Amino acid sequence: MNSFRNGWFSEINDLWPGMVQSLEVGSILYNEHSTFQHIMVLQTKSHGRVLILDGIIQCTEKDEFSYQEMISFLPLCSHGSPKRVLIIGGGDGGVAREVAKYPTVEKIVQVEIDAKVVEVSKKFLPHMAKGYESNRHELIIDDGFKYLKNQNDKFDVIITDSSDPVGPAKLLFEKEYFELLKRSLMTNGVVCCQAGTIWTNMDQVEKHFTACQSVFPKVNYGISSVPTYPTGQIGFLLGSIDDSIDFKQPRKIFSESELDNLNLSYYSSKIHESCFILPRFAEKNLNRNVH
Amino acid sequence: MNSFRNGWFSEINDLWPGMVQSLEVGSILYNEHSTFQHIMVLQTKSHGRVLILDGIIQCTEKDEFSYQEMISFLPLCSHGSPKRVLIIGGGDGGVAREVAKYPTVEKIVQVEIDAKVVEVSKKFLPHMAKGYESNRHELIIDDGFKYLKNQNDKFDVIITDSSDPVGPAKLLFEKEYFELLKRSLMTNGVVCCQAGTIWTNMDQVEKHFTACQSVFPKVNYGISSVPTYPTGQIGFLLGSIDDSIDFKQPRKIFSESELDNLNLSYYSSKIHESCFILPRFAEKNLNRNVH
Repeated sequence: MNSFRNGWFSEINDLWPGMVQSLEVGSILYNEHSTFQHIMVLQTKSHGRVLILDGIIQCTEKDEFSYQEMISFLPLCSHGSPKRVLIIGGGDGGVAREVAKYPTVEKIVQVEIDAKVVEVSKKFLPHMAKGYESNRHELIIDDGFKYLKNQNDKFDVIITDSSDPVGPAKLLFEKEYFELLKRSLMTNGVVCCQAGTIWTNMDQVEKHFTACQSVFPKVNYGISSVPTYPTGQIGFLLGSIDDSIDFKQPRKIFSESELDNLNLSYYSSKIHESCFILPRFAEKNLNRNVH
Repeated sequence: MNSFRNGWFSEINDLWPGMVQSLEVGSILYNEHSTFQHIMVLQTKSHGRVLILDGIIQCTEKDEFSYQEMISFLPLCSHGSPKRVLIIGGGDGGVAREVAKYPTVEKIVQVEIDAKVVEVSKKFLPHMAKGYESNRHELIIDDGFKYLKNQNDKFDVIITDSSDPVGPAKLLFEKEYFELLKRSLMTNGVVCCQAGTIWTNMDQVEKHFTACQSVFPKVNYGISSVPTYPTGQIGFLLGSIDDSIDFKQPRKIFSESELDNLNLSYYSSKIHESCFILPRFAEKNLNRNVH
């Protein structure tokens, strides 16, 4: 199979061999290499605009809300009253958009390695890139790993919105990265990282979980439905050194009308509580580790 | 796109325009028309053997367990102590396999319209077709709709394991069908039907929900993750005229060791309770209806 054929884009990758998802393309809006990766924005027939990095779908206009809301509100509501939030990655701006909604947040620092992703998102994906418009938001173009090594601020919540553990994001799935996160985290702080799917990458999820747990005594893995990700599902690792935290019990519960005002289409307190309940096979694989 | 190209099968259907999932094929094991539909069994590279009816993936060896376990154990455990179970459809035998595990079940009647699907499944999909081996199981080859009209038995649980609401299964999504189910159901009985996905067919889910609710005062919609179904997710409609039933609270709770003995890889009581918690957008669409 080729990536492009007869007006269709196919997502071909060794991370999920033998299966491929394809989207029908209306037009190619952007298609260039940056210093770090290949960047493409497609106007699709069924899913609106789609951002693709190194041939992998990052987000589609139709279903990006579930990913962005969950990777943001899971740690924010687990913490309860975060003021300072750090985002590593998230170049499309969608996570910043969600974090900026949270009432107690005073400062959002975002470290994205690839300025071109930001530029392209501002131009072609304004519904996500509006995260950059908040006056509490500061963008730093740098390698997240290096940034964490050299800075001395502390944050309440750190969100790692990375691509998959191949290419530039590989280091963000290792123990050393969690050590760096801990160093930049308040003692009651919460980290949340994109953590792959139990259906095709259970081994990777376990490895990632163990790396997180070796640094953060409190850790859990929750899932969200995102139809255009392989297997239709993605997971998030949450970690903290605060022993009083229970990720399954959000400290902040929003009312229905508050959720309406926050324009949340996927996240609710009940979804928060239930996202950690895994299919038995996954529960058993991670069970020995879950606190 | 064509269904077959360079060793890949692509699932192309107007139910989900503009998106296509493809599986790499090792060999074609069966590829014929029956009286009712086109039947294909593929040996795939990543998902074992796959049953395809009229070009739509029905089940893959790798992930069929989540669908079969959920469509069976949700109504069985909601009821608590079912003795007589009716299955409409389910020609591959997977649902019968799961129902036969349930300790209190004394009789399983299965009405499948297409004898060819049963024959093909017995030959090529023995891991599912072993449902037919139980001595409590009776197979009737007939149109489920007609069968329900003409029979006078009562059942504790009726499971409709149909294909999508196009072609032969279309009638199984209408109010008249639920009337027929009610007529064959004990007053404390439970029905469970395959009910599509909120991500591409929310309108259809709502319509189906309303049809069910017009006959069964108690109704709910739960979801399961099935990576090889479009959007990676499928839903189930549960209905009952028993006012004391709460689908979110299974009457039968299996212990971990019982679940092990039942060889359940997806279903657990916690999964049962949480599967009815929907993303906000779906909750809002169905909310006015949920009891």
